[in-house]
Amino acid sequence: MDKSEEILHIAQNRGFFYPSAEIYSSKAGFWTYGHLGTRLKHKWEALWRRYFLGLSPNYFEIDDCNIMPKKVFESSGHLKNFNDPLTECEKCHFRFRADQLIEDALNTNAAGLNEDALTKLIIDNKLVCPKCQGKLMPVKWFNMMFDLKVGATGDDVMYLRPESAQSPFLAYKREYEALRKKIPFGLAVLGRVYRNEISPRQGFFRLREFNQAELQIFFNPAKISECKDWDSIKNYKIKVLKENGKDAEELSCNTLLTKNKLPKFYIYHMAIMQKFYLELMRIPKESFQFRELSDKERAFYNKIHYDVELKFDSLNGFKEVAGLHYRGDHDLLGHQNGSGQNLEAIEGNDKFMPHVLELSFGIDRNVYALMDIFYTEDKERSYFSFPASLTPIDVAVFPLVNKDNIPEMAEAIFDKLKNEFKAFYDDAGSIGRRYRRQDEIGTKFEVTIDYDSLKDNDVTIRERDSMKQIRVKVDDLVSTLHKLMSGSIEFEKAGKPLKKKTEE
Amino acid sequence: MDKSEEILHIAQNRGFFYPSAEIYSSKAGFWTYGHLGTRLKHKWEALWRRYFLGLSPNYFEIDDCNIMPKKVFESSGHLKNFNDPLTECEKCHFRFRADQLIEDALNTNAAGLNEDALTKLIIDNKLVCPKCQGKLMPVKWFNMMFDLKVGATGDDVMYLRPESAQSPFLAYKREYEALRKKIPFGLAVLGRVYRNEISPRQGFFRLREFNQAELQIFFNPAKISECKDWDSIKNYKIKVLKENGKDAEELSCNTLLTKNKLPKFYIYHMAIMQKFYLELMRIPKESFQFRELSDKERAFYNKIHYDVELKFDSLNGFKEVAGLHYRGDHDLLGHQNGSGQNLEAIEGNDKFMPHVLELSFGIDRNVYALMDIFYTEDKERSYFSFPASLTPIDVAVFPLVNKDNIPEMAEAIFDKLKNEFKAFYDDAGSIGRRYRRQDEIGTKFEVTIDYDSLKDNDVTIRERDSMKQIRVKVDDLVSTLHKLMSGSIEFEKAGKPLKKKTEE
Repeated sequence: MDKSEEILHIAQNRGFFYPSAEIYSSKAGFWTYGHLGTRLKHKWEALWRRYFLGLSPNYFEIDDCNIMPKKVFESSGHLKNFNDPLTECEKCHFRFRADQLIEDALNTNAAGLNEDALTKLIIDNKLVCPKCQGKLMPVKWFNMMFDLKVGATGDDVMYLRPESAQSPFLAYKREYEALRKKIPFGLAVLGRVYRNEISPRQGFFRLREFNQAELQIFFNPAKISECKDWDSIKNYKIKVLKENGKDAEELSCNTLLTKNKLPKFYIYHMAIMQKFYLELMRIPKESFQFRELSDKERAFYNKIHYDVELKFDSLNGFKEVAGLHYRGDHDLLGHQNGSGQNLEAIEGNDKFMPHVLELSFGIDRNVYALMDIFYTEDKERSYFSFPASLTPIDVAVFPLVNKDNIPEMAEAIFDKLKNEFKAFYDDAGSIGRRYRRQDEIGTKFEVTIDYDSLKDNDVTIRERDSMKQIRVKVDDLVSTLHKLMSGSIEFEKAGKPLKKKTEE
Repeated sequence: MDKSEEILHIAQNRGFFYPSAEIYSSKAGFWTYGHLGTRLKHKWEALWRRYFLGLSPNYFEIDDCNIMPKKVFESSGHLKNFNDPLTECEKCHFRFRADQLIEDALNTNAAGLNEDALTKLIIDNKLVCPKCQGKLMPVKWFNMMFDLKVGATGDDVMYLRPESAQSPFLAYKREYEALRKKIPFGLAVLGRVYRNEISPRQGFFRLREFNQAELQIFFNPAKISECKDWDSIKNYKIKVLKENGKDAEELSCNTLLTKNKLPKFYIYHMAIMQKFYLELMRIPKESFQFRELSDKERAFYNKIHYDVELKFDSLNGFKEVAGLHYRGDHDLLGHQNGSGQNLEAIEGNDKFMPHVLELSFGIDRNVYALMDIFYTEDKERSYFSFPASLTPIDVAVFPLVNKDNIPEMAEAIFDKLKNEFKAFYDDAGSIGRRYRRQDEIGTKFEVTIDYDSLKDNDVTIRERDSMKQIRVKVDDLVSTLHKLMSGSIEFEKAGKPLKKKTEE
């Protein structure tokens, strides 16, 4: 198996993720998080909330409906602009996403081309239906939003939101007032969004129903060149792949300001996002970059747009997992015009339409990135070397044998640990096999209770990456594990060296 | 304003909840959680997870798509049975939910009646369209699921899930295997569900898009009369309103077993649910009851069904907020037949189709119940007396004045507190008004920094319900607040008495 198959195999069999409604042969683009994947997702979300909502006391989270009125998307421009190019086979009537079909056939980049350019490429290169060799029809736009009918009369068309961002724009007026009209302020949403992809590929990576974590920062556009923490980041280097660049470069924030002419408020948030990836998610720098998007690639509402890309071995290179979008006043102005409500803000004597900076993250792609980047194989085992803050299971508890009062002691320890950590009890199979099973899902520590434990009240803690083992007193176990999880103590200094190693 | 108007006013203006897409005059049944409501919801969800997933090391949460294939609902019975009765006006073609229209007109209970019985009531009582006095057509069933088309060909009909329960049933096979085939095991979902209500009323209480917290316990039906903790609950009294009863009675678990013939496994979970409401949510016993549902009222899949009802002043009495549903093998058997997959389990030498006990909670109704039940008015103020574990904001920090180095000290304290608690900084208006604003949203403690603080490094903590105040050292503030939040110390013993009270 190659790496992507290995990860998929573990994901499906251990309970990270698997196709949704799988017993009915699922539809592409729909996946379920199993019990371990849900833990990993929740831990990533908790990390995200703590970091991004902690940036300012004026940033808050809201939680909104997924079904929204048609007028929202008339104002936002999604009804007109949120389209994918579609071509249909004249013979078998199968439909394809035209840019993907062309990219596959010609090994070229067709993103961002218009209908005519795509149709011309199909004709010039005599491309035919990959299914039945039939003739392909001219390319048309296909709107990617799901519509549905609400109410018994059936004449109220509403839509599933295609991005979480519209929720803060719709709630902006209420929250601006409830939060006492302070600017800048931020509204985050962590929730589901829906896109009717024509033919989603790449398994768990391109989804029809997925999760976004987005922070919309509303600010005074007159202050886009201000940044009170500028001095702390001006020499900080950001890894950027420029529009026509071949390799990413490390550019200081100062260089991005003076040479690349980006505004300070934007650069500051590039630094914030990079720090989240490198310092909190612990992504190695070689697997991280910002990529500047071209005019053609940018979403229709963005004035400045850099994506965060991570390197996925299982997807053959760098792929988008987040974006920093300067949306300007596109959204609030659209909703002001569409709704007739005044959405302006006031700061001092300044009356203005706030501009929006959007920090946008695909939750599922980030979860998948953790699994791809931290997947590690050595001679005897595979394991996920997740940071302790992201492991689905913190600690596993093993009785060496199922007799002689060892299970009773192990269960008592498990009962104590489960209130403090996500703990898992396993008494089946050899200790070596139990270690492998926990390694495979990235559990950071294992605690084993053996015959000596009954005599001296010591237990063994084993660390995942190094496979080293120490002995600690049962009474110190909770506090020692807390220190180990937070990284405030080195593993080998946290206990006594082991006399005899438990069988690996 | 009456109580329901008061709560709605606070909810909308302070950021608990407000109509979704409100600037476009929202559709009934769709609401947004604002920044305080989102906190309240998250805290309730955290309490739920800690308690219900903590019941067994073999209970886990999963996270699934909201869009599901049609076959799921053929097997589950929802396509055939998940209907509301509909009547239409011949003249204006407005559609009504027939049972509600009859209940309003005749002041009777029409729940659970079939089409013919409802039609007969309309004819016999000469009921007409409430809008235009036109003639009403015979009652028909209306399916409450939202359907949508997936893929570019438009011929793949899928549905938004009308209950979260189907997700565990679909994931059961994968998780049973990933969790090493242990029975009983439990799968929880906290997520959105969707019902196309014909004409939702009651504001935030009856929604078209809402949130459920459900735990599905898969167990061996041969063991439904077993309960290893029976001795600990057999004398515990449960408050139950029987099918034809007028008032709820307190019945011991033993009585429910011997007189009411309920199985032990079911009674045990009634006790578990009641304890969650009385001990964790701190609902007063007089506002809580289980209600037995009649055959007509029970959902089509339930063998035994008691609802948890709480007393809402703003809704004129007891209303359903949760249910304990013995679904038997209805779901797994349906999915085994529909999918052709073997869904049986094995325990020892026993091979069987697991039965399901469902603990089902409407998250939004529980959040609303907290606001209704803990809303308190006295002479000078209104406040939410939420338990400390459920307050949206834990502690507010006030500088007495905005000069003389007091803001600097207050900000330093706020920076320390915000890492440990959900903290809010407010420096606008008189101290008395700032207290009122925090009372109104249920903040449990306020910390005020005054001129004395600069000299003696003491600050004032004020408690919401009693409005009492104490002085504590800044260095002890975090640990004192932790003790106060967890209830491990009495307020007046947590600091020195106050020499002069800050202005209320």
